[in-house]
Amino acid sequence: MREINVGLLGCGTVGLGVAKLLIEQKGLLISKIGAVLNLKRVADIDTKKAGLIKFDDNVFISDAMKVVDDSEIDIIVETIGGEKIAKDLILKALNNGKHVVTANKALLANHGNSIIRQAFENGVEIAFEASVGGCMPIIKSLRESLVCNRIQSMTGILNGTCNYIFSKITDDKISFKKALSEAQASGIAEADPTLDIQGIDTAHKLAILIALAYGTNINFKDIYIEGITKITSPDLLFADQFGYKIKLLAITKDRQDKIEARVHPTMIPCDNILSNVDGTLNAINISGNVVGDMLLYGNGAGMMPTASAVVSDIVDIARNMLSNTKGRVPLLSFLMDNIRNIPIMPIEDIMTHYYFRFLVLDKPGVLSKISGILGDHNISIKSVHQKGRRLNGFVPIVMLTHIAKEADVNFAMIEISDLNVVTDSPVIIRIEDDNIED
Amino acid sequence: MREINVGLLGCGTVGLGVAKLLIEQKGLLISKIGAVLNLKRVADIDTKKAGLIKFDDNVFISDAMKVVDDSEIDIIVETIGGEKIAKDLILKALNNGKHVVTANKALLANHGNSIIRQAFENGVEIAFEASVGGCMPIIKSLRESLVCNRIQSMTGILNGTCNYIFSKITDDKISFKKALSEAQASGIAEADPTLDIQGIDTAHKLAILIALAYGTNINFKDIYIEGITKITSPDLLFADQFGYKIKLLAITKDRQDKIEARVHPTMIPCDNILSNVDGTLNAINISGNVVGDMLLYGNGAGMMPTASAVVSDIVDIARNMLSNTKGRVPLLSFLMDNIRNIPIMPIEDIMTHYYFRFLVLDKPGVLSKISGILGDHNISIKSVHQKGRRLNGFVPIVMLTHIAKEADVNFAMIEISDLNVVTDSPVIIRIEDDNIED
Repeated sequence: MREINVGLLGCGTVGLGVAKLLIEQKGLLISKIGAVLNLKRVADIDTKKAGLIKFDDNVFISDAMKVVDDSEIDIIVETIGGEKIAKDLILKALNNGKHVVTANKALLANHGNSIIRQAFENGVEIAFEASVGGCMPIIKSLRESLVCNRIQSMTGILNGTCNYIFSKITDDKISFKKALSEAQASGIAEADPTLDIQGIDTAHKLAILIALAYGTNINFKDIYIEGITKITSPDLLFADQFGYKIKLLAITKDRQDKIEARVHPTMIPCDNILSNVDGTLNAINISGNVVGDMLLYGNGAGMMPTASAVVSDIVDIARNMLSNTKGRVPLLSFLMDNIRNIPIMPIEDIMTHYYFRFLVLDKPGVLSKISGILGDHNISIKSVHQKGRRLNGFVPIVMLTHIAKEADVNFAMIEISDLNVVTDSPVIIRIEDDNIED
Repeated sequence: MREINVGLLGCGTVGLGVAKLLIEQKGLLISKIGAVLNLKRVADIDTKKAGLIKFDDNVFISDAMKVVDDSEIDIIVETIGGEKIAKDLILKALNNGKHVVTANKALLANHGNSIIRQAFENGVEIAFEASVGGCMPIIKSLRESLVCNRIQSMTGILNGTCNYIFSKITDDKISFKKALSEAQASGIAEADPTLDIQGIDTAHKLAILIALAYGTNINFKDIYIEGITKITSPDLLFADQFGYKIKLLAITKDRQDKIEARVHPTMIPCDNILSNVDGTLNAINISGNVVGDMLLYGNGAGMMPTASAVVSDIVDIARNMLSNTKGRVPLLSFLMDNIRNIPIMPIEDIMTHYYFRFLVLDKPGVLSKISGILGDHNISIKSVHQKGRRLNGFVPIVMLTHIAKEADVNFAMIEISDLNVVTDSPVIIRIEDDNIED
């Protein structure tokens, strides 16, 4: 039986999962592929990792570059993470004519264009299903299943850590800080949670999806990013009273020759299926001009779900090799010649609904001043609520708006903040709600 | 640029959608495939269909067999539906060495094994993504994305008509009959709705999914099927009070050397995401031993969503042709030699939770008699409720059970029905709820 040799770089959580699957599911994979996926080499700089799993003799080594240079290896799986070393190894592997599978979204978001170009020029595959949404086949759906659709928008919960924290704050009524430390204690958040809670990880994933959806180069740096650290319990409570939940969403919309692309805490109505995605689960809604809305939902992270996606990529490549196929599906959905640079809109140009919370002096005329300023900036108020208790003479005023332009909101907020009857900075949360009329 | 010639059989709803896509999305498809999918022939016995869309000269003909015998055509798309004619045409096409794409679940459920065998022996593809779940990539997920998973269970809402009717009955509090006629008036239900409301269409789809998930031949005839016609508003109301919704579910579970496979109205808890799938939408939850739960959700029927899935199959085959690949992915997930005959369990052997509703004489001792009989048959009651108003001396008693065996339930119900204090047949609805302890 034909053997396809796999070299695994990095034996951390995901790498270990991949190794386990290739060993433990060998029989199942043979029954579907008719060939052996042979884990020929595993490299990790930490040689203690060799003891984590029962590898055959001589499989485990410490020098990843030796794996990349091994002429018998067909497919390199990079699960090291980070950018520098992973990038060098992947480029070397591609130059050595090897196919590459990676789950490294940070690397793809920041260096994906040159890496993909390198794979293309070397006539090899680079596959990255596991980089977005864990086990969910979001990459395959965009590249293959939705091939005849123009993607109109995507809205996703793509970071399990943030979603877990929001679920904890909402359901258990605990502070952000406490929720974060609980997440860290249970291994859901990392010791340094910056990439997750600042929304950066979500934006990495969005950058990849946008390229696949619209046929544009990967452009991470222009995505607007706002993390979840500033969301406090009063806003979660008010959201609940309006029938909303707050989620960290990745949002992109096709705006003709521009793309809307943003990551921020967002209020969504409770009848939106995304609002029921709790804990560490991920979900993404894709709107195609032919299919309408389609949603994928599942484990967006974790050892085995992510490893499952990596192995599906390995199998895809193995099947290409077994049938002597090259470049069967374009790496970024569109043929390389058809990939353009579609600009991402500045956040100031987006139009959406808003939730505002002001803390104001409880006296006559305040509301009229605020609404006057909003009106001057073309911001039309849908509803106003004075909610919660008076504290030291101050009361919270909450407003929901009709569609408004972000730039107008910014200008209005500067003026409102300057009012001496308004204390603190206003809280602004964007709303995605198809139910409200514009 | 290379052309791949497509012949379309049947210009009904789905066929027309496919024709529209191939014509209107030609540019998009070229930018992703690098070849033209040329709609060379469209056949429909009803020649008035020729006027539905602007076909090029000589594209539309009335004789489908001429399309199948056209030596220039590479891919035949069958959207005629029904079993007899479609089967003959597909077999002829396969024998002529053509690839086939079909959305015909009834045909595959009843004759799929011989058709797939024929395709295999002729070294051509038969693709059927559109046969289950409309636009959702459920077939591709099972064949490719979840390749290293043993599927443990699948639970799906696979018939939009039934789901629409249930949504109407629940939300608008109207009768089954009225909901059905509304569905017919709006084109959601067919004039003869038998296949849908009797659960047969759902079972057709389940039969296909089971084969792909477990590596067994397609076995429609052994699936237990119960339609939605007997569900009445009292039960929907009680369900609501217990925090359940009723949905027509396709359910399958891996039971070692057997398969559980059943289609029936089912109570599911409101925190199960499937309970929020309303209207004509479909959804399916797949439980894999590696990924855990993964859910797909979207338009399960309708002209364009179904056509989108058909076109994704056409593109898959076109990509194989362009890269000279044959049999890249096994037709039924597993290599033909590895497909077994795994028996489907008789419904009497399944174990699940139950909802019972009895109409009984409102007098002492009745409850003790009923619970005594249940106890005699090893059915353990989780809760009992006397609900609703007394009518002519009768009151409804509702019970939820712990895990019980279907055969035991059947025997108990015979005895309970024989009690002279019980009027009418008891109502039995199966419950799927992971939250209740066994």
